[in-house]
Amino acid sequence: MPAGACAWISLAAIGCTIEAVGNAGEEGPVEPDFRTQVEQMLDAQASSWNAGDLDGFMIAYERSPETSYIGANGRLDGFEAIRGRYAPLFARGAERDSLRVTNLETRELDPRFGVATARYVLHRGGETISTGPFTLVLQRVEGTWMIVHDQSAADPEPSSPD
Amino acid sequence: MPAGACAWISLAAIGCTIEAVGNAGEEGPVEPDFRTQVEQMLDAQASSWNAGDLDGFMIAYERSPETSYIGANGRLDGFEAIRGRYAPLFARGAERDSLRVTNLETRELDPRFGVATARYVLHRGGETISTGPFTLVLQRVEGTWMIVHDQSAADPEPSSPD
Repeated sequence: MPAGACAWISLAAIGCTIEAVGNAGEEGPVEPDFRTQVEQMLDAQASSWNAGDLDGFMIAYERSPETSYIGANGRLDGFEAIRGRYAPLFARGAERDSLRVTNLETRELDPRFGVATARYVLHRGGETISTGPFTLVLQRVEGTWMIVHDQSAADPEPSSPD
Repeated sequence: MPAGACAWISLAAIGCTIEAVGNAGEEGPVEPDFRTQVEQMLDAQASSWNAGDLDGFMIAYERSPETSYIGANGRLDGFEAIRGRYAPLFARGAERDSLRVTNLETRELDPRFGVATARYVLHRGGETISTGPFTLVLQRVEGTWMIVHDQSAADPEPSSPD
């Protein structure tokens, strides 16, 4: 098992400042492209994070025992295990770190599967306390892109974004 | 960009001791299952690594400008960029670290896409010098599973396997 000395953070600590760049178009509603949907997903996750809404935050993850996560403490299998990993972070009450995502890259592999990578930046009181890269494997489930696997890592030392 | 203080290793440092567990079956050749094919791919990569065969090692990566890699120094885009990242490791000549993979987990998402996670263990002279988790996103291209995205991280301190 990993030594776990570094402060890896749940990669889901993501997305506060992302803004949806897609529009429905002037001819009527059309489904946003893959990148826009991923941005919207991450933005919604960040809003839930900042609101202390664990269940809202977890909506991005497919509710399946096969959904998996790799972070500082090894691999977790299943939506419930991942939820359990995040729960203590949401129990901190008023202590809300500010999160944002940089360097988002997306690749729609086919209509059902895609990959997104980015870097999270976690601020507290004006100080950057953790940064790092993450990978999301996404599956389109009933029209919605959901996380089916997530690997997140922390930089050895927080780095300035961009 | 990441501070890069930790000794992250290319996640491709993988697989030496993996053995194929699938067999063709007694009724004639059948295609091995997804897990077996991933094991074979990682085993072949490790053999190439230990033989100093960069091109053999790179065969596992889809030869595409969209193939991507995240490691210690940020994201790389394209087969050639990833090859360039590994090349110096293969130029070390006789200095051959011993690599193996533990904790392999595989998930075939559909007939074209799958995810594999594992941990690499890198030995040198009987000492474990680096360990860490990685995620591979795999696509079946003309019957062969290939890496289309790879995120690899190093544990803050090498940990004992298993």
